[in-house]
Amino acid sequence: MPKSRRSISIIPVTNIPEIKPDDDLVKIVLEAASDSGLSIEGGDVLVFAQKIISKAENRIVDLNNVSPSPYAHTLSKEVSKDPRLIEVILSETTKIIKMDQRKPEKGRLIVETRGGVISANAGVDASNVSGGNMVTLLPLDSDKSANKLADGFKDKLRVDVAIIIIDTVGRPWRDGLVDIAIGCSGIKALKDYRGETDSKGFELNATVMAVADEIASAAGLLMEKADSVPVVVVKGYKYESGGRGAKELIRNPEDDLFR
Amino acid sequence: MPKSRRSISIIPVTNIPEIKPDDDLVKIVLEAASDSGLSIEGGDVLVFAQKIISKAENRIVDLNNVSPSPYAHTLSKEVSKDPRLIEVILSETTKIIKMDQRKPEKGRLIVETRGGVISANAGVDASNVSGGNMVTLLPLDSDKSANKLADGFKDKLRVDVAIIIIDTVGRPWRDGLVDIAIGCSGIKALKDYRGETDSKGFELNATVMAVADEIASAAGLLMEKADSVPVVVVKGYKYESGGRGAKELIRNPEDDLFR
Repeated sequence: MPKSRRSISIIPVTNIPEIKPDDDLVKIVLEAASDSGLSIEGGDVLVFAQKIISKAENRIVDLNNVSPSPYAHTLSKEVSKDPRLIEVILSETTKIIKMDQRKPEKGRLIVETRGGVISANAGVDASNVSGGNMVTLLPLDSDKSANKLADGFKDKLRVDVAIIIIDTVGRPWRDGLVDIAIGCSGIKALKDYRGETDSKGFELNATVMAVADEIASAAGLLMEKADSVPVVVVKGYKYESGGRGAKELIRNPEDDLFR
Repeated sequence: MPKSRRSISIIPVTNIPEIKPDDDLVKIVLEAASDSGLSIEGGDVLVFAQKIISKAENRIVDLNNVSPSPYAHTLSKEVSKDPRLIEVILSETTKIIKMDQRKPEKGRLIVETRGGVISANAGVDASNVSGGNMVTLLPLDSDKSANKLADGFKDKLRVDVAIIIIDTVGRPWRDGLVDIAIGCSGIKALKDYRGETDSKGFELNATVMAVADEIASAAGLLMEKADSVPVVVVKGYKYESGGRGAKELIRNPEDDLFR
């Protein structure tokens, strides 16, 4: 298959073992990539599912050790969830954006998390964690986690790679979940086309693209939920280095029509 | 570069000429692909920017021929836009979702379009159209447009390809635009993992992925606004065929916490 120079490849890193607290993700990813003949090069974007970052950073809670507050009990009835889970969600929440008291059986609770990302249940998740009562929390600071990984790869490989940590979220107005960037390093999350002209010579308006979210979604296509592909390598995408992490993707609340 | 069997390639179709009303997009894309040595095969996903579909379907309006209604004049002051543009936007709108009267200078007007997609300005857009007063409208029925393209490729190639028509939209809570699917053919827009088990044997919950939107975002990475790459081919993604088009991505308003 002949390809243009500008093609992008999205490649899964297979055979990554179950991640445990304090595991060295850089070493594990490089070994898994090497085992499958995949070389990681400067300019690649390495996309990590939030779940393995959370496991490596020991962001795991055993619900059996959680004592729900009175408010967690109240809320648990309003959204039909385990009060211990609600307690954990509240511990990650800075603001409740919306909940679905009309249909408590749907259990919808949309909150703003400490990192600023708005998502259901503050990203607290029970799937793909060993033990029926264990849940994972989002990393404490996903941009920091991404920086640490970028530094680790630089140490080992002597080249710069970009890191994106992604999570799967719902959206207003549209059905189905998509993946978004919750942490970034080495890549500008937003690409600003303002001031450039279109193919007719007219200035482009309002075109700041959320490229980190678009890469997150591209990588998400290979992170099938029932599989074990928590890391994906994106090759061939010409990103702008630098930036201030995924926090650039969080809209200023004063400028948000939907908060 | 060795690659796993499950890798995905995103390949731009370059050298597509300026599209005019009634142009045969199937013929034009096949010629452009062939010129650059790119073969389109069964199972590929062909992603089209809305703009060239709109041009081929003559969904173009010259603002010089538009007489704004009194309401368009009122609204034009509230969001600081040309009243003729407002008139065109209203002609594509079924419901105004939100506008920004506190900051009219930002010109934000979020509406539900006839196809059900919620977007700024009903997808009416001035960039990349010849002539300073010309704007494009979204296709009348993007799923139908996608079906027509899929049939056209089937006719010429004797294989099934999937078609996704995409548009660039803003989102609540997050800065930067992303691409979403507004029309689909031959691919299920949603992939339902419910009932499947995760790698620990636990049943996955609430995991219906909007794969058509994820493909739209992946393709969007190559459709740089100032370039002329209105078509992208995605190879290697194992999609489920069938489905009911991109309308499956529109959340039922009664089930939407944000309408």
